[in-house]
Amino acid sequence: MKVPFVFAHPDKNSFNHSLLDAAIKRLESQGNEVKVSDLYRMKFKTTVDEDDFLNHENGTRLKVAQASYNATEAHQLTDDVVAEQEKLKWADTVIFQFPIWWFSMPAILKGWFDRVFSCGFAYGVGIHDETHYGDRYGEGVMEGRRAFCIVTTGGSSDHYSQRGINGPIDDILFPINHNMLFYPGFSVLPPVVTFRADSRREEVYANAEKAVLERMDNLATVEPIHYRRQNFGDYKIPEMTLKEGLEQPDQTHFDIHIKRD
Amino acid sequence: MKVPFVFAHPDKNSFNHSLLDAAIKRLESQGNEVKVSDLYRMKFKTTVDEDDFLNHENGTRLKVAQASYNATEAHQLTDDVVAEQEKLKWADTVIFQFPIWWFSMPAILKGWFDRVFSCGFAYGVGIHDETHYGDRYGEGVMEGRRAFCIVTTGGSSDHYSQRGINGPIDDILFPINHNMLFYPGFSVLPPVVTFRADSRREEVYANAEKAVLERMDNLATVEPIHYRRQNFGDYKIPEMTLKEGLEQPDQTHFDIHIKRD
Repeated sequence: MKVPFVFAHPDKNSFNHSLLDAAIKRLESQGNEVKVSDLYRMKFKTTVDEDDFLNHENGTRLKVAQASYNATEAHQLTDDVVAEQEKLKWADTVIFQFPIWWFSMPAILKGWFDRVFSCGFAYGVGIHDETHYGDRYGEGVMEGRRAFCIVTTGGSSDHYSQRGINGPIDDILFPINHNMLFYPGFSVLPPVVTFRADSRREEVYANAEKAVLERMDNLATVEPIHYRRQNFGDYKIPEMTLKEGLEQPDQTHFDIHIKRD
Repeated sequence: MKVPFVFAHPDKNSFNHSLLDAAIKRLESQGNEVKVSDLYRMKFKTTVDEDDFLNHENGTRLKVAQASYNATEAHQLTDDVVAEQEKLKWADTVIFQFPIWWFSMPAILKGWFDRVFSCGFAYGVGIHDETHYGDRYGEGVMEGRRAFCIVTTGGSSDHYSQRGINGPIDDILFPINHNMLFYPGFSVLPPVVTFRADSRREEVYANAEKAVLERMDNLATVEPIHYRRQNFGDYKIPEMTLKEGLEQPDQTHFDIHIKRD
């Protein structure tokens, strides 16, 4: 299996980097091919600006989606972005690993998505008609590939439980799992989450590594989250609202977009 | 009133920048003091790394929260971060303005939060005992100040409605409004949202400007979102789970953290 990691932590001796090293070792020992985009070590450019679009005339009005589309179509994206897109197309399973900072991903990883998920590549693709609203949410360039997140948090699992003050971890990660990964067509596996990663207790790392290695052993067989695909009858087009009555009675908010039957 | 903007769009001729200019003009015409952190124009450093903490020995293990705390306590944060923190302390109302990219803020703004909301400033403050779990979620350095977001999206309001495929806009913004702004003590006003900002229809801009100017006229009187304060009896400590029975029967997921009675 071909497995790229997109990794975002500044310290090569971190809890996260140790998990990464253990995961790579396990994958390679089983004959998988691994590539790592260690964004800090690469000094990956974090901000979208006019320099990202080689056919954009500097100083003129920058409509980001349009400029991104024009550059994608004309093969005028920068080399660093193209290299990442190629890694994604090479992949069978993509792993995003990061510490949760302020309830989302570190800026350097957000910048990776802002730049690499260009218009005409990850969004703004496919036909729009009465039965099909673009290739997205279950279709698109990443269709047939798997992806998931390995994350750490400072807070405890209680704080991220159904009634926890931070909000449920599945809801905190929904904008990533559903809206960034399922959107361009990935099958999204449940995240591997380590809570209280800063607690300094040795068993926290041991348990995290165990969970990560178990996932590495089961990349091909873990059941994806059953997000509803957009263009297969569950949603009104072009409103893109879920048709009434499809969800279970106890499903609300983000949860209605997961098929449970 | 003292009003800093934290603004994140790369193009000074953008829809967003036009809204910003209109807002500033209105505020200043009414005698308010405005400061703008135009993050792209400032080339604001986007990524957290060891260079952010002047008393951190480069090359040694970087535990980000701990290093951030040590630097905050010892006044060893970098000048750019300190300047932003000073702006926040000067403020009566802070406005965050950005286009929604991949269902969250642009990386440059996420980097602003990752760096400016340092440990010992915006989190990791206050006592932790049986009745008080740190100064957060309604208490903290920003207590007594207001904040809100002005955002644009490419998608339509239907796509962000209660049954919309992107998820409800209030849920998409909850990790920002509740977990990043309410967390250090801001009173958080409802966001000003413009949908379909890329549609090129003139009335979209006109309506957006009208909504923004109306908000500028009412900064002091708009009712904040009634998020539940953490340390005032609604949550179990240290689990930080909402006590049973406090929410309305139709409230679930993120919504239970909003008081409605």
